[in-house]
Amino acid sequence: MSSRLPVELSKSYRLLNHGPTVLVSSAHGGATNVMAAAWSMPLDFSPPKVALVIDRSTRTRELVEASGEFALNIPSRQMAQATLAAGSVSGREHDKFAEYRLATFAAEKIGAPLLDGCLGWLECRVIPEPHIQQRYDLFLGEVVAAWADPRAFRDGHWVFEEGAPRSIHYIAGGNFFETGAAFDVDQ
Amino acid sequence: MSSRLPVELSKSYRLLNHGPTVLVSSAHGGATNVMAAAWSMPLDFSPPKVALVIDRSTRTRELVEASGEFALNIPSRQMAQATLAAGSVSGREHDKFAEYRLATFAAEKIGAPLLDGCLGWLECRVIPEPHIQQRYDLFLGEVVAAWADPRAFRDGHWVFEEGAPRSIHYIAGGNFFETGAAFDVDQ
Repeated sequence: MSSRLPVELSKSYRLLNHGPTVLVSSAHGGATNVMAAAWSMPLDFSPPKVALVIDRSTRTRELVEASGEFALNIPSRQMAQATLAAGSVSGREHDKFAEYRLATFAAEKIGAPLLDGCLGWLECRVIPEPHIQQRYDLFLGEVVAAWADPRAFRDGHWVFEEGAPRSIHYIAGGNFFETGAAFDVDQ
Repeated sequence: MSSRLPVELSKSYRLLNHGPTVLVSSAHGGATNVMAAAWSMPLDFSPPKVALVIDRSTRTRELVEASGEFALNIPSRQMAQATLAAGSVSGREHDKFAEYRLATFAAEKIGAPLLDGCLGWLECRVIPEPHIQQRYDLFLGEVVAAWADPRAFRDGHWVFEEGAPRSIHYIAGGNFFETGAAFDVDQ
């Protein structure tokens, strides 16, 4: 099981601010699914909100619409293969948790499972905006709980030390960037 | 002046897919401005669309609402200081182009200036969605032209060679990550 500590809600945007690719987990009526998403971003600080594109053809879309909930899980580089796979096949035909050996643990505030081995987790409730959901596949969510692996993110900050686990950034065609060197700019 | 080549519109999402921090440039009625934004993402492939948060207190917001246009400029690490500054002071009191010595060149399809020294550029027209603009400061745009510095992105792909200029990812408090090592995962 992943080591994890709660992240203060007002700092939870920092888990997403640098634009990592995420795994979106969802659950409804006994069914669960996970998909990859490069298209997510913070939307507000307090209460924290996120925006996320969920294609209308996906099984995740059905589960998120039915439950009104989703979780954003921030995978490490070690999970890149599973991330690509989770973004390439449909939960309609595949039990991705079993096929990619993705262990999960229970979220605190929502029904969607959280993925073991990730660096951070955002539990979200959909803010209903039917027009943009239908027209653009665009979902807004309020972050109701957040967690991080303290080896990667603690006290509201990403851990910058050499060797700390890093998040990943998908481009296309199986190409990723790793999150690179940290640097500071004086304000 | 930056070296630049057109980017095929269907590939333009790849400039943003890995979640870089961007500089948003805008113009209206002879006034111009630039601000930093960590909260942007692709929204669709074809026609390409983007989503972007533009706070209601900003000068950029006024110019974007008045003109119906904005550009997303993807800064290099060399521009990190200017990026932080452009996100920290208001265009109401500062001519950021002059103060941070940001040279510009003309866009092709929109009036907003494009910033010299960036790695890529997306010229966007606002897709009017007044409800989410007012409620969430969330703007949608259609990408009508795109460009990239071929040292960083060419033929629809980021250049992965060692020493190629890299984009940046803002976190908070002057902390950035550089875009790190590229890696491939077999599909």
